[in-house]
Amino acid sequence: MTDFKEKFDSYRVAFENALDEYLASVSLKPQILDESFRYSLKLGGKRVRPVLMFACAQMFGGKISDVASLAVALEMIHTYSLIHDDLPAMDNDDFRRGQPSSHKKFGEGQAILAGDALLNQAFSVCVEECKKGRTYVNAAALIAKNAGACGMIAGQAADLYFQGRDDASEADYEFIVRNKTSKMFMSAVAVPAYVYDADENIAALMLEFGKNLGYLFQITDDMLDVSGDFEKLGKTVGKDAEEDKLSAVRVYGLEECSQKADRLCELCLKLLSQLPYECGFLEEFTRYVRGREQ
Amino acid sequence: MTDFKEKFDSYRVAFENALDEYLASVSLKPQILDESFRYSLKLGGKRVRPVLMFACAQMFGGKISDVASLAVALEMIHTYSLIHDDLPAMDNDDFRRGQPSSHKKFGEGQAILAGDALLNQAFSVCVEECKKGRTYVNAAALIAKNAGACGMIAGQAADLYFQGRDDASEADYEFIVRNKTSKMFMSAVAVPAYVYDADENIAALMLEFGKNLGYLFQITDDMLDVSGDFEKLGKTVGKDAEEDKLSAVRVYGLEECSQKADRLCELCLKLLSQLPYECGFLEEFTRYVRGREQ
Repeated sequence: MTDFKEKFDSYRVAFENALDEYLASVSLKPQILDESFRYSLKLGGKRVRPVLMFACAQMFGGKISDVASLAVALEMIHTYSLIHDDLPAMDNDDFRRGQPSSHKKFGEGQAILAGDALLNQAFSVCVEECKKGRTYVNAAALIAKNAGACGMIAGQAADLYFQGRDDASEADYEFIVRNKTSKMFMSAVAVPAYVYDADENIAALMLEFGKNLGYLFQITDDMLDVSGDFEKLGKTVGKDAEEDKLSAVRVYGLEECSQKADRLCELCLKLLSQLPYECGFLEEFTRYVRGREQ
Repeated sequence: MTDFKEKFDSYRVAFENALDEYLASVSLKPQILDESFRYSLKLGGKRVRPVLMFACAQMFGGKISDVASLAVALEMIHTYSLIHDDLPAMDNDDFRRGQPSSHKKFGEGQAILAGDALLNQAFSVCVEECKKGRTYVNAAALIAKNAGACGMIAGQAADLYFQGRDDASEADYEFIVRNKTSKMFMSAVAVPAYVYDADENIAALMLEFGKNLGYLFQITDDMLDVSGDFEKLGKTVGKDAEEDKLSAVRVYGLEECSQKADRLCELCLKLLSQLPYECGFLEEFTRYVRGREQ
């Protein structure tokens, strides 16, 4: 477990370095855009998606630097989604990771634009990576598809639709999580498979692993929300909107959530066991996600 | 002039067909996302940017179909920027082209997501086009750069910053227009140069033409706003926010705007005269933009 934490931290440091390198290469005007752009990217967080991408790149025998720009792009997409999610018209969160959310710090209009800028720069970075050849085009296409209107945004739109309603079915909740959370995890773990041109069945295994790991992540996130262990979530106490939100606990109850999480954890480990690679870190990662609320 | 109008309409029809073909290929969930996505794209408008892109493609001896998908992507980016621009936290416009704006029809949260979805699908379409080869990657990179944090979004952030303030200089206004409006025109006219791998100096001429045509477009737009000829603008009377907005007329006065527009029109025509192609349509287009407020 100490090994796991050290490895996790080393990936995280590698990502912060890649991000800082990217940020050093951009200088935005007006100043408020430059500030809002950097602010949310440097608010921290566990960098779960980049860490997964780096670990998978190494698992395929590749280098972190091969996917560093795509990891920055993926994290920019994740960050824009949080900024827009926090807006009064969405989740109405005044805090993010213990700091004022973007719209509290820069105003709503500038927060909307900061989010737009992050998504657009992710787009730019991905297209630049396409210059490296066909396998990078495939990887960029995966990121775009999973972040888009048939991916993360579909999940967010459904999530928003059910806010304050009580007629969401289990299928509705599944749709939300499969899109809002899982799709970004799928990109994180499958991008290296695409970049290194892995066999189709290997890529399919990675996508399936990401799908279920994302689901597991969302369920334990929802359970942590209920247990109120905000510190682990990096959230600030007092989220008024939380009560209106659809969650695994609301749909399944705490007991069934726990069983579901166990099953998803098993499934992820089983998928990993089918890979012809050394994937100890991904196994530990899966157990770490499962264990967050225990 | 009749020839020009017929040609314009034929490009516009070609674009509507390309857009309808794209829309037929996507089916979004939840339903509200599907509706909000289509609603703003089919609100109409003159389709100025796609028309320019098609005309330039033909000028280079190419086919409309070569750039049809990139034109759809560019129009999706333009459309998302209008949706986010209309939000209460930005320009606060209840109407767009005589119809309720996205947030009036679908609610603010869904409007934010509809905009995000449009930008993201433009990103997806551009990356798919990258599969066609190096020249398409260059064209997609141009679109991404010009729409992004050093392009259109920079202009919008500056525009928003100066809303309700009265300390904007001529340089500030220039910065806004050069980014918010000109950058998208630059993409429209230079994408075909990139796709057909035109000489560097030809591509530079097209970018310069787009830059000045965009500026001319914005100035005549601002003058139309003052003259109140909303019909020509496709706007609805009664824009409260308009008074707070920075405009060419406010910065330069109506008389100087008119002279500036004349000079920009001359400059555009001079740039076109340096091209080794038949560019009658682009000349007429320039005169049409200049003549809008006369």
